[in-house]
Amino acid sequence: MAFNLEELAPSSGEWLRGAGPESDIVISSRVRLARNLADFPFIARATESDREEIERQLRTRIETLQKENEKFPSSLAYVDVGRLEEIDRQFLVERQLISRELAEGDGARAVVIDRGEQFSVMINEEDHLRIQVMHSGLDLETAWEQINTLDDLLEEQITYAWSDKLGYLTACPTNVGTGVRVSVMLHLPALVITRQVDKVFRSLQKINLAVRGLYGEGSQAMGDFYQISNQVTLGQSEQELTKKVADIVPVLLGYERKARDFLMQESQQTLHDRVSRAYGILRTAQTISSEETLHLLSSVRMGINLGLIRDVEIPTINKLFIHTQPAHLQKIAGMELDTSDRNIERASYLRRHLDGNGGASAGHN
Amino acid sequence: MAFNLEELAPSSGEWLRGAGPESDIVISSRVRLARNLADFPFIARATESDREEIERQLRTRIETLQKENEKFPSSLAYVDVGRLEEIDRQFLVERQLISRELAEGDGARAVVIDRGEQFSVMINEEDHLRIQVMHSGLDLETAWEQINTLDDLLEEQITYAWSDKLGYLTACPTNVGTGVRVSVMLHLPALVITRQVDKVFRSLQKINLAVRGLYGEGSQAMGDFYQISNQVTLGQSEQELTKKVADIVPVLLGYERKARDFLMQESQQTLHDRVSRAYGILRTAQTISSEETLHLLSSVRMGINLGLIRDVEIPTINKLFIHTQPAHLQKIAGMELDTSDRNIERASYLRRHLDGNGGASAGHN
Repeated sequence: MAFNLEELAPSSGEWLRGAGPESDIVISSRVRLARNLADFPFIARATESDREEIERQLRTRIETLQKENEKFPSSLAYVDVGRLEEIDRQFLVERQLISRELAEGDGARAVVIDRGEQFSVMINEEDHLRIQVMHSGLDLETAWEQINTLDDLLEEQITYAWSDKLGYLTACPTNVGTGVRVSVMLHLPALVITRQVDKVFRSLQKINLAVRGLYGEGSQAMGDFYQISNQVTLGQSEQELTKKVADIVPVLLGYERKARDFLMQESQQTLHDRVSRAYGILRTAQTISSEETLHLLSSVRMGINLGLIRDVEIPTINKLFIHTQPAHLQKIAGMELDTSDRNIERASYLRRHLDGNGGASAGHN
Repeated sequence: MAFNLEELAPSSGEWLRGAGPESDIVISSRVRLARNLADFPFIARATESDREEIERQLRTRIETLQKENEKFPSSLAYVDVGRLEEIDRQFLVERQLISRELAEGDGARAVVIDRGEQFSVMINEEDHLRIQVMHSGLDLETAWEQINTLDDLLEEQITYAWSDKLGYLTACPTNVGTGVRVSVMLHLPALVITRQVDKVFRSLQKINLAVRGLYGEGSQAMGDFYQISNQVTLGQSEQELTKKVADIVPVLLGYERKARDFLMQESQQTLHDRVSRAYGILRTAQTISSEETLHLLSSVRMGINLGLIRDVEIPTINKLFIHTQPAHLQKIAGMELDTSDRNIERASYLRRHLDGNGGASAGHN
């Protein structure tokens, strides 16, 4: 059973669903595996016809699994990324279903997505397969068990590149071994406000944990969202890697909660002012950039969690985080918009969904 | 008949009443006369007992006039400024009824104010008398006629320092002659946004017109309010001076209207965004300074005049301009407040009066 990408747009996706344990701070838990077919060269050395053949073979095997094995997700979209419009590729990036690299690459490439958006497989990204399981909130163990099962099912159909000495072979040496990357996306506004975030992250780097922004490597930490993940996969088991990330999360939660308590005690008025103004601006702006929107929504999200804002719910804010991203905004509006028109449409969308009468009606439009 | 200062607090005073011709831009028209008693030295050379005697004599004469001459305002407050609390002196400065100099001076000094706040006389400011008539909107001619009548009535009771050659003698040479200062307070936000205001003011200075901010000499142009007045009084008749200021006002109105039209045509979205956000912040801030308040109210005031904001009226905004000033705020709250508490009280006052539910209720207060 297949479904259409358009069906995904009205929701906020699994990663910003706002459910699961510790969801005031932990946005999502993700495990991904890097895998390659034994019979083909790595992507960097593959010819275009290799890539087409890889894509064709994987498609066939995944479709077979879907039909024949009831443990495999039954409702999948198989998306030919190369044939997608730019806006649809961007849409999938915004939902954390494909990487920027896959979106911006060329040649035969695809992604398989289950309807619930918990499971996806990128084909011909840096590796032949990038299998991902993502859960809302803090839930690494379940995510790990789920991806392990799916990986086993796939391995029944596919011969992976493997070395008895090294483990799974991958395009980039940092992935060799288990090929696993375990990550959590955290919302850490209080650590940002109290200027502790850099210090905390430096200490994470010392224990080989990587910190990235909202949209992966190199992206800025927009909206105070930070992704924490393991740096290397060699020499440790998948369970050890999962545990390493899982163990640090309560520590980070503790820091963020402590920072929030500090702000509430030492400068509640300033904090209340900040979140309240953010909410006010989101409800009255007539034009607003994506970056400012993320920044203000982040304040409002924390304000709700601290009981400083009470007439809007977290799911609404989570949905706005994703729906105000450029591709989502255009898909929802049903038309392509340039930056300037997007900023106007974004402001309008925010006003409508935050129930702000806005106070200011359009003049001579 | 006397009245109490407390009776003035609930209104916005004459100068921000928002009535009169061209009141979208012209806040008020003011004429003041500098006069000195012939029989006493100027203030700078007067002893404290001179000042007391001047004050006593002027009080008696004004009270006599009030009782005996029906042309003289019948409801007056005679305020001993030296005995006022700091907050009450500041209150009168905020209403443009006394100067900062009178408020901050020492020794015997007073102000006489009529209930409508159109007429006031400062005693022992820079000169023995500073007589002021202020009208809302553009109305210099009427203000001139009114002050001329009052001056004549006073001169029946008082012998002014006078030179046949120079005219009225005053403490500062710039006032010698007619002793008249004619001024208009203008609201020029569009000239500020379009960065034309400095150029315009330089050209005014070339024709000997002075430009000052909201609270007189040296004060910054807060809230985009500018006071335009004549620089010298010697060698020109009162009518000529009044005409000189009156003639420039339509020119300045033209510039400001042109700048507003330009903004509405060339960047309406940006302008709408600016005024709408200003309104949003005023309705949601939990703490706000006096300066930021003036700045935001200025945007909202222009927004209303341009039809970009429709659910609040100009008189409300005018009232907020004055009621959010430090002394007004404390008098209305009925208690002294330090800067930090004032900023909180100001934000609360703004939210209540702009009908903003604010969206953000207090948390653990």
